[in-house]
Amino acid sequence: MNQLARKLAAEGLASFFLFSGVIGSGVMAEALAGGNIAVALLGNTLATGAILFVLIVVFGPVSGAHMNPAVSLVMALRGEMSWRDCLLYVLVQLAFGMLGAFAVHLMFDLPILQYSAKARSGIGQWTGELIATFGLILTILGTLRYRPEWIAPAVALYITAAYWFTSSTSFANPAITVVRSLSDSFAGIAPAHVPLFVVAQLSGAALAAGVGRLLFDPD
Amino acid sequence: MNQLARKLAAEGLASFFLFSGVIGSGVMAEALAGGNIAVALLGNTLATGAILFVLIVVFGPVSGAHMNPAVSLVMALRGEMSWRDCLLYVLVQLAFGMLGAFAVHLMFDLPILQYSAKARSGIGQWTGELIATFGLILTILGTLRYRPEWIAPAVALYITAAYWFTSSTSFANPAITVVRSLSDSFAGIAPAHVPLFVVAQLSGAALAAGVGRLLFDPD
Amino acid sequence: MNQLARKLAAEGLASFFLFSGVIGSGVMAEALAGGNIAVALLGNTLATGAILFVLIVVFGPVSGAHMNPAVSLVMALRGEMSWRDCLLYVLVQLAFGMLGAFAVHLMFDLPILQYSAKARSGIGQWTGELIATFGLILTILGTLRYRPEWIAPAVALYITAAYWFTSSTSFANPAITVVRSLSDSFAGIAPAHVPLFVVAQLSGAALAAGVGRLLFDPD
Amino acid sequence: MNQLARKLAAEGLASFFLFSGVIGSGVMAEALAGGNIAVALLGNTLATGAILFVLIVVFGPVSGAHMNPAVSLVMALRGEMSWRDCLLYVLVQLAFGMLGAFAVHLMFDLPILQYSAKARSGIGQWTGELIATFGLILTILGTLRYRPEWIAPAVALYITAAYWFTSSTSFANPAITVVRSLSDSFAGIAPAHVPLFVVAQLSGAALAAGVGRLLFDPD
Repeated sequence: MNQLARKLAAEGLASFFLFSGVIGSGVMAEALAGGNIAVALLGNTLATGAILFVLIVVFGPVSGAHMNPAVSLVMALRGEMSWRDCLLYVLVQLAFGMLGAFAVHLMFDLPILQYSAKARSGIGQWTGELIATFGLILTILGTLRYRPEWIAPAVALYITAAYWFTSSTSFANPAITVVRSLSDSFAGIAPAHVPLFVVAQLSGAALAAGVGRLLFDPD
Repeated sequence: MNQLARKLAAEGLASFFLFSGVIGSGVMAEALAGGNIAVALLGNTLATGAILFVLIVVFGPVSGAHMNPAVSLVMALRGEMSWRDCLLYVLVQLAFGMLGAFAVHLMFDLPILQYSAKARSGIGQWTGELIATFGLILTILGTLRYRPEWIAPAVALYITAAYWFTSSTSFANPAITVVRSLSDSFAGIAPAHVPLFVVAQLSGAALAAGVGRLLFDPD
Repeated sequence: MNQLARKLAAEGLASFFLFSGVIGSGVMAEALAGGNIAVALLGNTLATGAILFVLIVVFGPVSGAHMNPAVSLVMALRGEMSWRDCLLYVLVQLAFGMLGAFAVHLMFDLPILQYSAKARSGIGQWTGELIATFGLILTILGTLRYRPEWIAPAVALYITAAYWFTSSTSFANPAITVVRSLSDSFAGIAPAHVPLFVVAQLSGAALAAGVGRLLFDPD
Repeated sequence: MNQLARKLAAEGLASFFLFSGVIGSGVMAEALAGGNIAVALLGNTLATGAILFVLIVVFGPVSGAHMNPAVSLVMALRGEMSWRDCLLYVLVQLAFGMLGAFAVHLMFDLPILQYSAKARSGIGQWTGELIATFGLILTILGTLRYRPEWIAPAVALYITAAYWFTSSTSFANPAITVVRSLSDSFAGIAPAHVPLFVVAQLSGAALAAGVGRLLFDPD
């Protein structure tokens, strides 16, 4: 396999497992929790943090394991990847992430194609997404700068925390936002509410790119 | 002790503790959770992930701490262990794993010999096992290739996540599947449903061996 | 940016995320847990420990990531920072921490300005704060002395444990105590009960500074 | 301070925090869990694993952070500490551990002096203690032999798992068994049931010392 194909394959597999990890654990948690949403969120959080750690360790050395257009865009903006590769990454994240959602529906005997009806909207939630993505990008930039070997636990634990302290439970990822609109389950979001989530996420990412440059790239 | 005997002893002790960890924490969790299955699965997950980390740290340097015929088979396939040793590993995993189940029944004052009545079957669950084992083997191959010192947290956290995002709660291990059919408890599986679980697991492992070679073994 | 401005910016961002992490996860956990306080505390603990790890990894190399006047005071006392910088750190911790509380209120559609009505008082709770802060400072001094690369997991897991084994759920931080009085939510504390909490915390910190010198600074 | 005094002080502080961590988190968890014992055990487990990690990181470099007579005895047996120091360690573990229990009672406004009424007895539980301590000592010997820098997470996660997969919730420590008989709370044990727990623990430790020598000390 040539280098770019390997990178895209790694990015695709990572996105497949991340998105099915997030959505699948939501389905499982909601089914078992019997109405106790806090317990369901504990299971969803544990699974998401754990799979994030694994995917960054396993696929990071090949593709960087972005699994997130906000991350790929910031990397392109910083000149650390070409804009062409950035575009390919985003397409692969969306395509394989969608396969991840379909795999969850297959595993749990649900209709493969579905749309979420879960409303996620309002100033509070948008602020949540902005702060969540701002923090995620800062975490990545700061850790890569000073403690690159700890990028996997840092990102995994950032999302673990952000599931709980942001009002939107921290999607912080435009691709997963789109894909989660295709699953009418715990982790879903109504398609109509996707665009403003993405706007908030990209705003937070842009802000973090600027702050990160001032804070972590001296001189 | 000669080298092979040491390896088999380590593999046996690791399998004993892994299988009793999985089954015992299931018994404990179900007994205490009073019908809240999500809470029971949280306890079962926490104990499984934690003991996996420990066993790979402690016994990995001696035997590799496979504790799983799917792992041993992939290692033999890759030429990293002889087929004779592979066979001995699998026998030891089954034998000591079975002792682990019996030890749990002794500890919790249950009949030593029992069969599970828990149905685990259907396309959804088999897809779950295929995906779970595919991901487990990819995790092992990728981590050993690029971050070998992180194999213990990577495997432990992969299973932690997979307990929640696969519909079958991720057995991902033919030996533990057989042994769990011998415990009529939270982690059990009806003996009649074992063979197709094993087929799905080995299919996932074979697929991962191929993908892993393309992705992580360049040139 | 000059060096001091970078330090203060890092300290401010860390305090913003820590305080919003603690207060926000408390709001989320209480809202979802439906009266099961132990489940709410599990969510609050998980988020707090996770964000602490992240913030120390990300901002520690720039500012030390104190996020806590008790820590800054001990560092000044030990001659590891100037008293002027210590004062600036404390002001920044309070100011940005307060912004963190306001951000939580904005995200969760709550009134921005509020006061906690939660009573936290009595000899048991003060003893709890003294022990909690004593242990936190000892943890920091011992880890920095012998295993500085593990300061992030050590502090994160110390607070994870202390949320459960101290009667006060371990504030262990004068700035967060003040700021939590400004949120009438799970993590709140009535303003009138802040001063004695702070006295207990500073007593514990002073005691730990002395014990730590004897124990970890051989000559 | 001379070297032995420093060691004993570290061992005492570690035991104080471990024992109050175990007992205090049990009190807190039971008080908040409203009868859901599995949730209470989750909180108790999380706090115990977390504080163990911290104490081994912080005090391990000074005293070894045994906090457990079974560990000190095995170390003396292996010639890694003198029998005189072993005896002093055990006395300090008991004395400071007892202070830890008293501190919990003070923090939670309970009578300082009390005796547990919780029955913990029978072949199942004794087998549990034997297996729990056997595994703990093997974990310590194997990790110190091959991955000494991971002793803190290995021991912490071993106990995290063993709380769930052994029928006795894994005391695995004669000193904490004695001290837990002095607290009529979640973690308690009736004084009359202490001796056979200790016998089972020491049997498991002796067995592990022998197996560990064969397995981890080649030549």
